[in-house]
Amino acid sequence: MSKISVDTTSEGIHTFTDLHHGADLSKERIYMDYNATTPLEPEVIQAVSEALRDAWGNPSSSYVAGAMAKAIINQSRQNVAKMVGGKAEDVVFTSGGTEANNLVLHTALEHFRRNCRTAGEGDVNGSRDLPHIITSNVEHDSIKLAAEHLQTEGKADVTFVPVSKVTACVDVEDVIAVVRPNTCLISIMLANNETGVIMPVQKICQKVKRLNKQHERIRILLHTDAAQALGKIPVDVQELGVDFLTIVGHKFYGPRIGALYVNSPGTGTPLYPMLFGGGQERNFRPGTENTPMIAGLGKAAELVTSNLSDYQSHMHSIKAYLEEQLQTVFKDKIHFNSRFPGSDVLPNTCNVSILGPALQGWRVLSSCRRLLASVGAACHSASRNRPSHILLSCGVAPEVAANALRLSVGRGTSREDVDVVVEDLRETVQLLENMN
Amino acid sequence: MSKISVDTTSEGIHTFTDLHHGADLSKERIYMDYNATTPLEPEVIQAVSEALRDAWGNPSSSYVAGAMAKAIINQSRQNVAKMVGGKAEDVVFTSGGTEANNLVLHTALEHFRRNCRTAGEGDVNGSRDLPHIITSNVEHDSIKLAAEHLQTEGKADVTFVPVSKVTACVDVEDVIAVVRPNTCLISIMLANNETGVIMPVQKICQKVKRLNKQHERIRILLHTDAAQALGKIPVDVQELGVDFLTIVGHKFYGPRIGALYVNSPGTGTPLYPMLFGGGQERNFRPGTENTPMIAGLGKAAELVTSNLSDYQSHMHSIKAYLEEQLQTVFKDKIHFNSRFPGSDVLPNTCNVSILGPALQGWRVLSSCRRLLASVGAACHSASRNRPSHILLSCGVAPEVAANALRLSVGRGTSREDVDVVVEDLRETVQLLENMN
Repeated sequence: MSKISVDTTSEGIHTFTDLHHGADLSKERIYMDYNATTPLEPEVIQAVSEALRDAWGNPSSSYVAGAMAKAIINQSRQNVAKMVGGKAEDVVFTSGGTEANNLVLHTALEHFRRNCRTAGEGDVNGSRDLPHIITSNVEHDSIKLAAEHLQTEGKADVTFVPVSKVTACVDVEDVIAVVRPNTCLISIMLANNETGVIMPVQKICQKVKRLNKQHERIRILLHTDAAQALGKIPVDVQELGVDFLTIVGHKFYGPRIGALYVNSPGTGTPLYPMLFGGGQERNFRPGTENTPMIAGLGKAAELVTSNLSDYQSHMHSIKAYLEEQLQTVFKDKIHFNSRFPGSDVLPNTCNVSILGPALQGWRVLSSCRRLLASVGAACHSASRNRPSHILLSCGVAPEVAANALRLSVGRGTSREDVDVVVEDLRETVQLLENMN
Repeated sequence: MSKISVDTTSEGIHTFTDLHHGADLSKERIYMDYNATTPLEPEVIQAVSEALRDAWGNPSSSYVAGAMAKAIINQSRQNVAKMVGGKAEDVVFTSGGTEANNLVLHTALEHFRRNCRTAGEGDVNGSRDLPHIITSNVEHDSIKLAAEHLQTEGKADVTFVPVSKVTACVDVEDVIAVVRPNTCLISIMLANNETGVIMPVQKICQKVKRLNKQHERIRILLHTDAAQALGKIPVDVQELGVDFLTIVGHKFYGPRIGALYVNSPGTGTPLYPMLFGGGQERNFRPGTENTPMIAGLGKAAELVTSNLSDYQSHMHSIKAYLEEQLQTVFKDKIHFNSRFPGSDVLPNTCNVSILGPALQGWRVLSSCRRLLASVGAACHSASRNRPSHILLSCGVAPEVAANALRLSVGRGTSREDVDVVVEDLRETVQLLENMN
């Protein structure tokens, strides 16, 4: 799964093919960027392909052509719900994580607007009339930029709680300390995409639920973006105690759509649509359903439910081996940016810097002959030459952060892959140091 | 393509299979609901499947895995642009038509907000501070309900210009007559989904462009929802003169995503995003790109560009044959709800009522053994027992509208299919009349 080969066609289009199909070994690349995206599991491709061919009917049509599509969507909804420990009716399919995250922010504002009379009058922060949102300073851009936009437009106040520079983790008390009478949403990611650090979402929810009971205040909605956590660690909405949880198919070997878990949408938890149209998804998210992609998402969720402990332990052992080999080869030149005292980290994420003046992450990666990885979030690829603001926020020194490589392993990454990658890095570093 | 068979599995899930794969002939159904959705062309399925397998890289990744996905997306963008006569940079991929339509309304409001100081002061309609939107009373719900929502929320004034009860067409002068100083958007569908009537979008755009030049006024943006027109009649954004045009894959044998054509977005025409995130689609529509579906949309567009005149003439001749046979069999009991004096109609849409007290559309369709069709828009399937508000708006009498059948033929519908359907209708009507 993680071996791919690269060819350039006459049109200049790069192709990369699974090595099992046969390819030039000299060009074999090892993919270690599973936090950016994952390939689709064969069963997922099959589910999508079958639905493309057989379930093309409009799910809203009253005859059988629609009924088959509807049945597939219902089955997927159950599978996605099961993966996160929710009920089928709690799942709203979206075009992806970006839409799901934006929908939560939109809902929070609407929730505030409809309930703002009950909010406290004596807010000392001078922003009595605006909804207040709390998030962290290491969120994905689909929370960060969406929240910043609301702030710029004067539609909301946002507090970006900084993560600890020691633990790379948001502190529960820091979050609670910035709650205001007008706070209507707390959105903290379940695991960071660059460091892999797992955030204390459960504890935050417990404390906030007490707040929600104590005060004659607007209810604080609780959201976590679980994009990077699903398929890697157990995720259970009941245990976490969240109202909303973002699900992103292409991070767990599923297709490029997503879903939003909402604890009883419209009854237990408010949910206000951003789009209006033909009534699909109970009007929470209209638009003719993407049946094939929904079928694939359901299959990918089913695989996670069935095999999570295997996936998790495999990735954990491969990452341990990777870190061990890196340590052995690079000794005191290695710095792990995903090891923070007291913090749990995703089993697949190894963020590492090889120290040295000529060893910036982008330089190392572009010189590697075998390794495919990234220096941080894929959507920041344009700014690859600057150190990751996420790592800087986590207390990583700028000169260390500049050299960061985010190595994220997958379900199929083998020890042999690790050996190849570590050797590739050794040669690359030697080359770059000699050039210097 | 239009012959399907229906089976019920032990789990109660209906399946319907292409007859070429072999199935029980007694259950063979003829699909005539191509305005609800279309099957995917085999080449489209192939393009989606190949991308699912080979182009799973994150298009934002700087290495080859991403480059291949990016190249596919660029190629698709060119193909979609070519289909509508625009430039590649004018195409913004969306999750579908609903999102595209909502994005246009959102943009119009933002356009007004940022330019409202230039709007006229002397508005006699008493709503000087609100943006004004003009649309028709026969639009798809993703315009109608989105516009009504803006109205309910006090965010916009909307004029729903009624179509003529003679022509079923919106009158150009009626549209121009309701323009106000604060009008910021005119959105008129290119062809109606139930009657197939083609609207005078080109003429409206010509007149409005003169208005936009004459006045010291806010620019009126021009949008058409081309969901039902694409793949059936020639559609050219230059000829039409629109700023925005909505593209919906699953109406022209493509996948369940869409695109919005915008004439030079951000420079020539304003476009304000609804979603914020990782910068994809030049920040107009962020979210990791759905590469496989985009690949399929590009292929479907390419097929339309290459074969439109064949598709069009085939559908036209099949519809003519269908109408002829219906007339022959049902004589003066037939009423065509898609024939209006002076109006052009899509080549594939035959909206027809068989007159009689027991012959309501839903009753006829649920008694048919072979025909699969609908009484109107698929998203209104819940209200199938009431006559279509679209037909009533077009001047069709309630007792005639109640009996309406929307028969929409496709690229693969044959004369034999028509014979089967007409015979099925004849038997069904005889049965229902005898039961009465």
